[in-house]
Amino acid sequence: MYGAVIFLVCTLYASALDNGQMLTPPMGWLAWERFRCDIDCVNDPKNCISEKLFMDMADRLSEDGWRELGYVYVNIDDCWSSMDRDKDGRLQADPKRFPSGIKKLAQYMHDRGLKLGIYGDMGTHTCGGYPGTPLEKIELDAQTFADWGVDMFKYDGCYSNATEQEQGYPLMSKALNATGRPIGYSCSWPAYQGGLPPKVNYTQLGEICNLWRNYGDIQDSWDSILSIVDWFFENQDVLIPAAGPGKWNDPDMLIIGDFGLSMEQSRSQMALWAVMAAPLFMSNDLRTISSGARAVLQNEMIISISQDPLGIQGRRILKEKSGVQIFWRPLSENASALLFFSRRTDMPYRYKTSLSKLNYTTGSYKVTDVYTFKTTVLKDSTEFVVSLNPSGVVMWYVSAPAKLNSRLVFRGGPAPASANEDEINYIPAFL
Amino acid sequence: MYGAVIFLVCTLYASALDNGQMLTPPMGWLAWERFRCDIDCVNDPKNCISEKLFMDMADRLSEDGWRELGYVYVNIDDCWSSMDRDKDGRLQADPKRFPSGIKKLAQYMHDRGLKLGIYGDMGTHTCGGYPGTPLEKIELDAQTFADWGVDMFKYDGCYSNATEQEQGYPLMSKALNATGRPIGYSCSWPAYQGGLPPKVNYTQLGEICNLWRNYGDIQDSWDSILSIVDWFFENQDVLIPAAGPGKWNDPDMLIIGDFGLSMEQSRSQMALWAVMAAPLFMSNDLRTISSGARAVLQNEMIISISQDPLGIQGRRILKEKSGVQIFWRPLSENASALLFFSRRTDMPYRYKTSLSKLNYTTGSYKVTDVYTFKTTVLKDSTEFVVSLNPSGVVMWYVSAPAKLNSRLVFRGGPAPASANEDEINYIPAFL
Repeated sequence: MYGAVIFLVCTLYASALDNGQMLTPPMGWLAWERFRCDIDCVNDPKNCISEKLFMDMADRLSEDGWRELGYVYVNIDDCWSSMDRDKDGRLQADPKRFPSGIKKLAQYMHDRGLKLGIYGDMGTHTCGGYPGTPLEKIELDAQTFADWGVDMFKYDGCYSNATEQEQGYPLMSKALNATGRPIGYSCSWPAYQGGLPPKVNYTQLGEICNLWRNYGDIQDSWDSILSIVDWFFENQDVLIPAAGPGKWNDPDMLIIGDFGLSMEQSRSQMALWAVMAAPLFMSNDLRTISSGARAVLQNEMIISISQDPLGIQGRRILKEKSGVQIFWRPLSENASALLFFSRRTDMPYRYKTSLSKLNYTTGSYKVTDVYTFKTTVLKDSTEFVVSLNPSGVVMWYVSAPAKLNSRLVFRGGPAPASANEDEINYIPAFL
Repeated sequence: MYGAVIFLVCTLYASALDNGQMLTPPMGWLAWERFRCDIDCVNDPKNCISEKLFMDMADRLSEDGWRELGYVYVNIDDCWSSMDRDKDGRLQADPKRFPSGIKKLAQYMHDRGLKLGIYGDMGTHTCGGYPGTPLEKIELDAQTFADWGVDMFKYDGCYSNATEQEQGYPLMSKALNATGRPIGYSCSWPAYQGGLPPKVNYTQLGEICNLWRNYGDIQDSWDSILSIVDWFFENQDVLIPAAGPGKWNDPDMLIIGDFGLSMEQSRSQMALWAVMAAPLFMSNDLRTISSGARAVLQNEMIISISQDPLGIQGRRILKEKSGVQIFWRPLSENASALLFFSRRTDMPYRYKTSLSKLNYTTGSYKVTDVYTFKTTVLKDSTEFVVSLNPSGVVMWYVSAPAKLNSRLVFRGGPAPASANEDEINYIPAFL
């Protein structure tokens, strides 16, 4: 059955990059936000960009339950290479920080059921000043990555101009495909074009890249998340049609487990990224992550929403003056995700609505809160109240509508005879 | 000895309001930021402004170790009263939400070794639209509060003009004193005047109020804290001389334990408020607070810095381009608090300096990290590195300078013979 769905999806979205990769949003770990260009292995040996760091994260991914949930990519970002290409003009890893080389590091990942991602830049130099992959080096570098056994490649855009990018990003796509090795391809191109048409051609992007950064880099702050979320949903009518299996908008990394988010905000980022069908690349320290942050990132129900095989990006359906915003993502089997988000900064807010007000058709829906795991059944017309914490979310997995029952089914048995399903202040059992 | 210090302090600061109250910054709990004007006891009985809420918090303060640390005030804010005064013109509590009345509530606090604070407003109405305490009601209301056994009064300023405030705030001070009951007096006056001279007369404020709100209301967000901190330290040359035993600048409540702060940011607010010699009024839900937030709020070393008997407000001594800011507060017994704060949003930052660069005089200092409790000894000239997390702090209690030893004293024994105290990259054991 699962295979059949995948087949159908592949047929529907034949326009996606035809490398068979990333039919659901990719998941894993990416060094940049948390570890940046820290190359000071003398004074900061545990945190510097080195093979040790990536092996440490691979150990954690494979031993702490991450891999089984889908977090399989371990991605190097900038500052990994030597300042000089080798005598054959090939990129090479910094010999002190990656003494075993990238090929051995890829093998380390594969031995653990993980995948290795690497980073390059379309211009003369990477953003951090390391050797770039300009037009004339594209084929050579693509082949080098394939020879090393790399599984994903992020192509940044510093020190290149619009004309070079227009040639280079498609050329790299072809070059990666030509190696015969399946390599997921992440393009920073649209972020350098302002993220919007007419400069950005999302049809073309879907044909040449598996994912693309549309907007600026995420930082370790709630403000940064809000600015990203606002941009993505303000431009949703452009962005939603661009996404689908094998081709994803990328609002950048998950910063859950770092220093800037409260638990409430961590739950919000995870839910918002899942609704956006965003790639889930954590950038954090898996060696020291708190149990609270881990629980959010390992939430199986949210991951299953993120990884829904239809791969339809969700949309904001309501923006209330109260600061409440509501998002909706259609899922396979006629289900959906419904996300309530509070932009308030005062106190928990009691938001009252009904499924019919949120455009749900007539019927009875089984609703599960993905963070509390509580389930109830709601008729479309039933008024309910969700209590939203400041900067927090409530996220529901809403099943397909069932035939209307004459009575609501409560957990633990039928409703008391006196229960009035349409009572305005009816609050479902899971609140 | 403690008594002698207090006596000395009282002599030095004879200009403070002469009610003997709040010789160190007051500590306790205040309803506003977390519970606002929630009067919906039907749908939200646990969180509405009612005697039950304040009794709940009193129970937590007295049973969970708060009282012993100094958190003794339980303070009502707006929305406590009936919409009408009684037949004698007296304020009265809302009969449904405070059925036992304020006098009984004050007794409840006193029975537990706690104190009760209440709220009023200089204008025709409170900010929430309840009856105000305009000029002609000041003496009556002050007497009512005293009759009830209230221990602190916050006088807000909505719906009053500058002329009324100029009369009303001093008049209330006299009226409270005239009751004979010691009542701590919190004035919102300067916040309504923009917080700065020449509109604000801080000399006068110190003579009539025990604490005063200088700036806007805190909200449940890190942004709000940053805006408060920036304002207080940009205006430190005006504000620092205004503060002292019995008279405090009030940057508003602690929001630690609410929804908007990460653990890192929670530690930062606590440390910054202690350095500012700020009142420590928590506004959170003590019934459900996390153990992490509680540990920050109950940190004894930071509380002892906050409560230092000299009562000197600290200052920002350095604002680096890197985003590192450094604060210093002189403490009794020739000690000091030293606070390193990172405004960065990327990754932990290694900041290198020495005590002499931070204006410490020649000598050897015992230094204790107030969050890790690790102690070491630093010579003024020793270069050290502090690792600062994004939006995080490192706070040190620095003892009085001792005579220079020929060798550093390490925890667990003398330094190894080869240790070079002046080595540039020397990193103290507690980092």
